[in-house]
Amino acid sequence: MYRVASIGGDGIGPEILDEGKKVLDAAAEKYGFEIEWTDFPIGADRYLETGELVGEDELRELSTFPAIYFGSIGDDRVRPGVLEKGILLALRFYFDQYVNLRPIKLLHGVSTPLAGKGPEDIDFVVVRENTEDFYVGIGNRFRGRQHADLEVIRNLYSVRFGLDAESDAEEIAYQIGVLSREGSRRVMEYAFDLAERREKRVTSVDKANVLSDVYGLWREVFSEVAAAHPGVSTEFNFVDAVTMWFVKNPEWFDVVVTPNMFGDIITDLGAMIQGGLGLAPGGNINPKGTSMFEPIHGSAPKYRGLGVANPIATIWAGALLLDHLGEHEAGEAVVAAIEGTIRDGVVTRDLGGTAGTVDVGDHVAHLIRS
Amino acid sequence: MYRVASIGGDGIGPEILDEGKKVLDAAAEKYGFEIEWTDFPIGADRYLETGELVGEDELRELSTFPAIYFGSIGDDRVRPGVLEKGILLALRFYFDQYVNLRPIKLLHGVSTPLAGKGPEDIDFVVVRENTEDFYVGIGNRFRGRQHADLEVIRNLYSVRFGLDAESDAEEIAYQIGVLSREGSRRVMEYAFDLAERREKRVTSVDKANVLSDVYGLWREVFSEVAAAHPGVSTEFNFVDAVTMWFVKNPEWFDVVVTPNMFGDIITDLGAMIQGGLGLAPGGNINPKGTSMFEPIHGSAPKYRGLGVANPIATIWAGALLLDHLGEHEAGEAVVAAIEGTIRDGVVTRDLGGTAGTVDVGDHVAHLIRS
Ligand SMILES: CC(C)[C@H](C(=O)O)[C@@H](O)C(=O)O
Ligand SMILES: CC(C)[C@H](C(=O)O)[C@@H](O)C(=O)O
Repeated sequence: MYRVASIGGDGIGPEILDEGKKVLDAAAEKYGFEIEWTDFPIGADRYLETGELVGEDELRELSTFPAIYFGSIGDDRVRPGVLEKGILLALRFYFDQYVNLRPIKLLHGVSTPLAGKGPEDIDFVVVRENTEDFYVGIGNRFRGRQHADLEVIRNLYSVRFGLDAESDAEEIAYQIGVLSREGSRRVMEYAFDLAERREKRVTSVDKANVLSDVYGLWREVFSEVAAAHPGVSTEFNFVDAVTMWFVKNPEWFDVVVTPNMFGDIITDLGAMIQGGLGLAPGGNINPKGTSMFEPIHGSAPKYRGLGVANPIATIWAGALLLDHLGEHEAGEAVVAAIEGTIRDGVVTRDLGGTAGTVDVGDHVAHLIRS
Repeated sequence: MYRVASIGGDGIGPEILDEGKKVLDAAAEKYGFEIEWTDFPIGADRYLETGELVGEDELRELSTFPAIYFGSIGDDRVRPGVLEKGILLALRFYFDQYVNLRPIKLLHGVSTPLAGKGPEDIDFVVVRENTEDFYVGIGNRFRGRQHADLEVIRNLYSVRFGLDAESDAEEIAYQIGVLSREGSRRVMEYAFDLAERREKRVTSVDKANVLSDVYGLWREVFSEVAAAHPGVSTEFNFVDAVTMWFVKNPEWFDVVVTPNMFGDIITDLGAMIQGGLGLAPGGNINPKGTSMFEPIHGSAPKYRGLGVANPIATIWAGALLLDHLGEHEAGEAVVAAIEGTIRDGVVTRDLGGTAGTVDVGDHVAHLIRS
């Protein structure tokens, strides 16, 4: 028996998560275990009603679960960033889920926008650092006099725009990204361990030629971790180049390890080459703590309640969750049933079908049972 | 008569720039003007010999030219970042070339990696801010005790890793990005002006839901500039989503305005969908000062001197240079001759041909003359 927390969230989140839970229950029954779900009413609705994002008590309670199954957050009634930072990132950070695991795999029967590429070409994993970089939320906005905040910034702009540093003329904002040696090392170790169970290639992503302080450290740590794994072949790629190779030579990649923000960008691109956001799952993993599994897409508020959203990304995230709990066979069965469902043509509009959200969930569950 | 500075730079830079100059001379002859070239020996070779990147005197001299024609920099013998920051970014910043103009256009006869897309689908322009953001080069790396550098960072990591803030245990790096209201406004104005001469759509790129300080300012300024251009339709896109739509719906875009670093990333992706880096030109523009035109690719050191590099990106950058000088007809003739050369099959290996660098330059020049 596993206790799993569930957070439907906003927009299409609750609908797709229901299908995910349905499928995981089917897999549990089939493979002889049970999942006890505990739902948490976290999301925009509650925030708008009570002002609460995630409470201290809630965090403490969530920390007693090995896993959280997460729908999606984001709502048009709330300013961009409030829910993302106050809920999703807050959970990733609080539980120190330092690995954001994002498989980029083109399933059989799904078409990719890339000419001449098939399932044999698109099958790699992005390991995104998930707690540092420009996601730490340190920044500020100010005018003139307060430039003294950061002397160096004040001087830069005094020179550039001929400003009197004492005036209030120019408005400036800054954002700070932070990387630590330990924070980089631990996610790279995870990536190398994963590569050792796959094709033994790790690509490191950075922009060390421009953001030399943070990504210089990243490169140095990567070289050290690589030296400790002589059986794995490695390379450095600049983030700009990575976006090209994802499109041109996706077959080249095995495991890609990336700082947080670049990971955000390249995994959306990865989602697209694997057939679209409706198909891309992610796991936020703390190998020793509470981990969280979610589709990588957002809450698509305009489709809320219409029953048309594609639940496959969420169901696939559920497979990652099962795998994380140690139920590897059940996890594989879920992925196989997703492929079967696609083969049977029971797919939503985004994949060219006419099935509804519930139809897809039902069919995946049915294939698992049979 | 126009005076133009030329910097061949490193790797394949000098070879491809020679072809560009050849083509521009042909266009000048045809359209009744003249270009006086002055070459500057800036690059890795000189740096390794003398330690000099770009001298004060050189900068002063360069500032007397309306335009610089630039090959590429980057050399395996030099640590990543030294030449990029010390030469390329130094020039962009010194001359305050705040617009980095990057047309993403699939030429007739070129194949794109995107299934089912053609020249009618891929034709937009990215206007990349070119002097701010995470390119300002402010950052640092330090250990324990010195965390007091930035109190907030020290606290973050003391908590995270249970560190004694007075110890030297943990190494940390940070990087600061800066945006100013004026720096954002001026590049957006350029983008809107451009859109008014095109299809009147501007897409703004940011990640305001996470990097809320810098990109919150960016969004606010964009809304203001948009309000002043009611004839142009606008939208916000998160950078992660942009990479998806470039691949899925490139036809959607007209003018894309983006902060510096995201612009770096999405224009490499853009280069790939327009057929590869060998075809992607860029202009670093200061509408009132010295502007600089370059291929957006790097110096490909391993192909140096082999005569196989594709000069089209550089030649096309030359067309942007002519346009910038006011020689619009000549600029258009260069682009037409590039298309003619591709149609005639006189293309390098990267485009599936067997022509050498010089063959391509000769053919483009020949088509202009005839
Ligand atoms: C919603 C947003 C904060 C999030 C991120 O940037 O990490 C999302 O884009 C993702 O990739 O999971
Ligand atoms: C070489 C590098 C500094 C440069 C950049 O990041 O701007 C390049 O990638 C580009 O896009 O022109």
